[in-house]
Amino acid sequence: MTAPNRATLWGRTLVDELAKSGVTGAVVSPGSRSTPLTVALAEHDDIETYSVLDERSAAFFALGRGRRTGEPTAVVCTSGTAAANYHPAVVEASQSRVPLLVLTADRPAELVDSGANQTVDQEQLYGDAVRWYKTLPEPAPEPRRLRSLRVAADRAVAKTTGANPGPVHLNVPVAKPLEPTEEPGDVPDSLADDAPLAVEGRDGPFVRTTAGRVEPDDAAMADIAAALESADRGLVVAGPLNPGRCDPEAVAELLDATGFPLLADPLSGLRYGPLVEDHLVAGGYDSYLDADGWPDPDVVLRVGASPTSKVLRRFLRDADARQVVVDPAGDWPEAEFTATDYVEADPSGTAGALAERVDDRSALDGASGDTAEGAAAAWRRRFERAETAHWDLVDEAADDELFEGAVLSEVVAGAPDPATVFVSNSMPVRDCDRFGRPRPAELTVLGNRGASGIDGITSTALGAGSATDDPLVVVTGDLAYYHDMNGLLSVARCGVDATIVLINNDGGGIFHILPIEEFDPPFTEQFVTPHGLDFEPSADLYGLAFRRATDIDDFAAAYRESLDTDGTQVVEVRTDGEASHRRRERLHERVRERVAREL
Amino acid sequence: MTAPNRATLWGRTLVDELAKSGVTGAVVSPGSRSTPLTVALAEHDDIETYSVLDERSAAFFALGRGRRTGEPTAVVCTSGTAAANYHPAVVEASQSRVPLLVLTADRPAELVDSGANQTVDQEQLYGDAVRWYKTLPEPAPEPRRLRSLRVAADRAVAKTTGANPGPVHLNVPVAKPLEPTEEPGDVPDSLADDAPLAVEGRDGPFVRTTAGRVEPDDAAMADIAAALESADRGLVVAGPLNPGRCDPEAVAELLDATGFPLLADPLSGLRYGPLVEDHLVAGGYDSYLDADGWPDPDVVLRVGASPTSKVLRRFLRDADARQVVVDPAGDWPEAEFTATDYVEADPSGTAGALAERVDDRSALDGASGDTAEGAAAAWRRRFERAETAHWDLVDEAADDELFEGAVLSEVVAGAPDPATVFVSNSMPVRDCDRFGRPRPAELTVLGNRGASGIDGITSTALGAGSATDDPLVVVTGDLAYYHDMNGLLSVARCGVDATIVLINNDGGGIFHILPIEEFDPPFTEQFVTPHGLDFEPSADLYGLAFRRATDIDDFAAAYRESLDTDGTQVVEVRTDGEASHRRRERLHERVRERVAREL
Repeated sequence: MTAPNRATLWGRTLVDELAKSGVTGAVVSPGSRSTPLTVALAEHDDIETYSVLDERSAAFFALGRGRRTGEPTAVVCTSGTAAANYHPAVVEASQSRVPLLVLTADRPAELVDSGANQTVDQEQLYGDAVRWYKTLPEPAPEPRRLRSLRVAADRAVAKTTGANPGPVHLNVPVAKPLEPTEEPGDVPDSLADDAPLAVEGRDGPFVRTTAGRVEPDDAAMADIAAALESADRGLVVAGPLNPGRCDPEAVAELLDATGFPLLADPLSGLRYGPLVEDHLVAGGYDSYLDADGWPDPDVVLRVGASPTSKVLRRFLRDADARQVVVDPAGDWPEAEFTATDYVEADPSGTAGALAERVDDRSALDGASGDTAEGAAAAWRRRFERAETAHWDLVDEAADDELFEGAVLSEVVAGAPDPATVFVSNSMPVRDCDRFGRPRPAELTVLGNRGASGIDGITSTALGAGSATDDPLVVVTGDLAYYHDMNGLLSVARCGVDATIVLINNDGGGIFHILPIEEFDPPFTEQFVTPHGLDFEPSADLYGLAFRRATDIDDFAAAYRESLDTDGTQVVEVRTDGEASHRRRERLHERVRERVAREL
Repeated sequence: MTAPNRATLWGRTLVDELAKSGVTGAVVSPGSRSTPLTVALAEHDDIETYSVLDERSAAFFALGRGRRTGEPTAVVCTSGTAAANYHPAVVEASQSRVPLLVLTADRPAELVDSGANQTVDQEQLYGDAVRWYKTLPEPAPEPRRLRSLRVAADRAVAKTTGANPGPVHLNVPVAKPLEPTEEPGDVPDSLADDAPLAVEGRDGPFVRTTAGRVEPDDAAMADIAAALESADRGLVVAGPLNPGRCDPEAVAELLDATGFPLLADPLSGLRYGPLVEDHLVAGGYDSYLDADGWPDPDVVLRVGASPTSKVLRRFLRDADARQVVVDPAGDWPEAEFTATDYVEADPSGTAGALAERVDDRSALDGASGDTAEGAAAAWRRRFERAETAHWDLVDEAADDELFEGAVLSEVVAGAPDPATVFVSNSMPVRDCDRFGRPRPAELTVLGNRGASGIDGITSTALGAGSATDDPLVVVTGDLAYYHDMNGLLSVARCGVDATIVLINNDGGGIFHILPIEEFDPPFTEQFVTPHGLDFEPSADLYGLAFRRATDIDDFAAAYRESLDTDGTQVVEVRTDGEASHRRRERLHERVRERVAREL
């Protein structure tokens, strides 16, 4: 490691250590104060650098990459409000446990709170939303300081992952010169010889960090296994989980051992994939758990965050059941306050441990013939029939009408195998929940469901898309599309291809499902906020293809065509938010009726 | 005040009190949790409500309105990352002392940190960037609680203004129902009769708050006045100051009494207006204070924030002078660390107090004839000649070439009287500093110079424009224009007309003035970041007129035409960032040479 001055040395050392610690991607926004970091990143062969101009979009792009891969992506900005623009993505990363390494350049200490230009208080800028925060010491060509820098880099990377992944903030003050200009004597010639360890680091990370896995307590497992074993109406409920955070094989073992249905949120990573082929993976619950006469479960094992489905959450809230919530970081993600057991442990490990301990209940399954079914088999059969009723009616409805649910049905059914499918908050994720039928295909369905904002959907999706060769499908509403329109620049600048399905109901369709609908004014003007935007010029601006689908067949054709075409296409579907809501309600009612009648 | 339930009562009471406290404008983004606030604002006749969909833009819009008027504008959002999107504008409001009242809706206490959807930690979300923070108690139809709400509202408004204006954050938790749905018995029928004061408030604010003015210390004034009186080379330097924060009449008295030149930053509020007619208001200092042989001042009186001009800041840094920094909030805004005196007092009051105490120095002025000039008169004459040299050369240069400085020269010279002119950070404000000639016209020139971000320029400008009937001119670069493109939606939705001068040099022109220019790569790809965007579709998207000017005469014509036309026009000037920089350098060199030769 050589460098013409201390700032350059500092940037190079930090970036060298980040790369050795396993950081493979960095999102950089242009700025002056961050020059030592930007220069070092641009030089480094093992870190892919993405240039994203709007810092809000930049942080969401990094979040998306981290969400898809489970590896921290660095995001680098200059001092000032640039860093404050990261805040929304930092909050989302914190809430949804995505590794994200925030590097904010800062002015040297003497300029903080001095009236100097573009100098703000960056200390603990993100409050409690980060797993770790540190203002680094200022660059100095001293062995101890350089070693401390390498350790801080390793520690930061380690803190973004582990049992409770999330954002880490390193604030990096640097004084001028920021550029790699030659400053004779600033870095002593003898430094590398005197302190090779500090200057060159080691082969591999300076400190190899290993994160343990939180294994469940044996006694608790035995106790819960006994409860599962004797359950008449057991359930496994999987809420949103990031890719790789719950092993489908372990869940399969648990389902095999217990015979329980799995209610799989679309963001759980368990609704799509081989698990579906030979297990009862339910996705239609949002339509039928509130059907008349649907019985309570008696035991529920829950993994992941709070499910998207309100019907499911209320069902669990009102159930007189033993409810076991499993969370590796002890965050108690259960806002209905009905859990009876919290298990702080890795969900895969817990599923495996329980599967091992549960005696084979497959006889209860009734699968072997038409002998009298036990209660457990009847419970299972109930879910199977309800799923059939639900998906039959969804298919029927989706066949002949272009409402928002039909679009999600088609998006999921027609997604290539494999694919990454990113669904926006507000209605798309809810429609994906209700209309996105489980498939054995390797669909990685993602959303920003930590804080459920609509502020960085496009960028997060493109960041996720940048991390794999899978085709990328983005389903977004008009408000989310508008909110992060700047993110579309990453299509060209970061070289990500996508099919962007834009469901345009000219405003906030979600408000139709809320009681405020009854109060107009201010309903239309302040809640729906119809903006009347014609988005076709937005595609021109960013060099994208744009096509407006007029009916559901036209949409299906445009969607297929886009998937078969290189480049990025925006396929817009104009819908009526209110009519779509009525359509959902009618379908919900029909499923409930059929289920109540049949069962 | 009647209300169908406690949440509605809470919202109405809060908004009633804000209006009585003097809040006349509120920017609202659509969301569910904020329903009680949104409903109450929409109902209220005395508060103008602006609907802005992107919360980042919304907060900047409110900031602009507050900057222009000096009155706090409320900004209202739902829970979650929406609130984090306010952070950049909150930081800018804090740094540049703009009143801003942030109201973030929040979930009730039991849902915080429970895993509930769209629920994040909003406690002290903006850290030390706000002047006051409070999480309100939850709505209850109780007299004490309602009185506490009124007091909190008055206190919040008062905290946004005063000697140190800035942002205030009220976090507002509310439980469902959020809508004005009838909940019989929730608000007791007898409440208004039992506690009329709590329910109806008073005529006018519940608590009338008066902010004192910080008057300067007498002994200090006498001492400093003596120094001014005996100065050979005195200066008054005015950095950025918000409108109304420094009375030009008081400054005029001080200039009359001392005969000092005033070096007026374009954002000081003192470079444009009647003061210019009969006082030496210098604006060309960035070109000549570093001329060979330019002498040091011996006494400098400074008001406002750190000046935009680096040449001026270095001149002050290197001066062997008594430097008096006047600041009403004791923030020591002097990052060159050469001040000899800090005066914590109102700048107008200080100017007035000094003017009263300084004996008439007009004989020193040499204005009465060709008698031998004193040192003070020579000093004054020096500035007069340098200003002439500077502006002659600027006019010459601006006449024949479309470089970025010529655009700012034309923008300022051609702005109507009165007008609000908003200049973006990075190059426009610097070019306005060097090329925007002082005029007696009532130009209110504004910028976001607190943290100097480019993230909310358009929205801040449109917010400023919303507050007056003055024509609005916005001068922005392509990166700033891109960054806040979403802000353009406010043209239509908030009914603001503007002339938007878009100086498009395809990337970060400012980097050409930095040493990183010598290092390519990464200079072009990571710093200049040419994006190649054709912005014409952005005008289509937002229903704006778009015209591209090809030379300086064409620009002047397009600019005049836009000013004479209703609606909003984007006048784009494509420039070469590097060539513009070279042009600035040549001009600087020529002024320095002429000044050194002549004086």
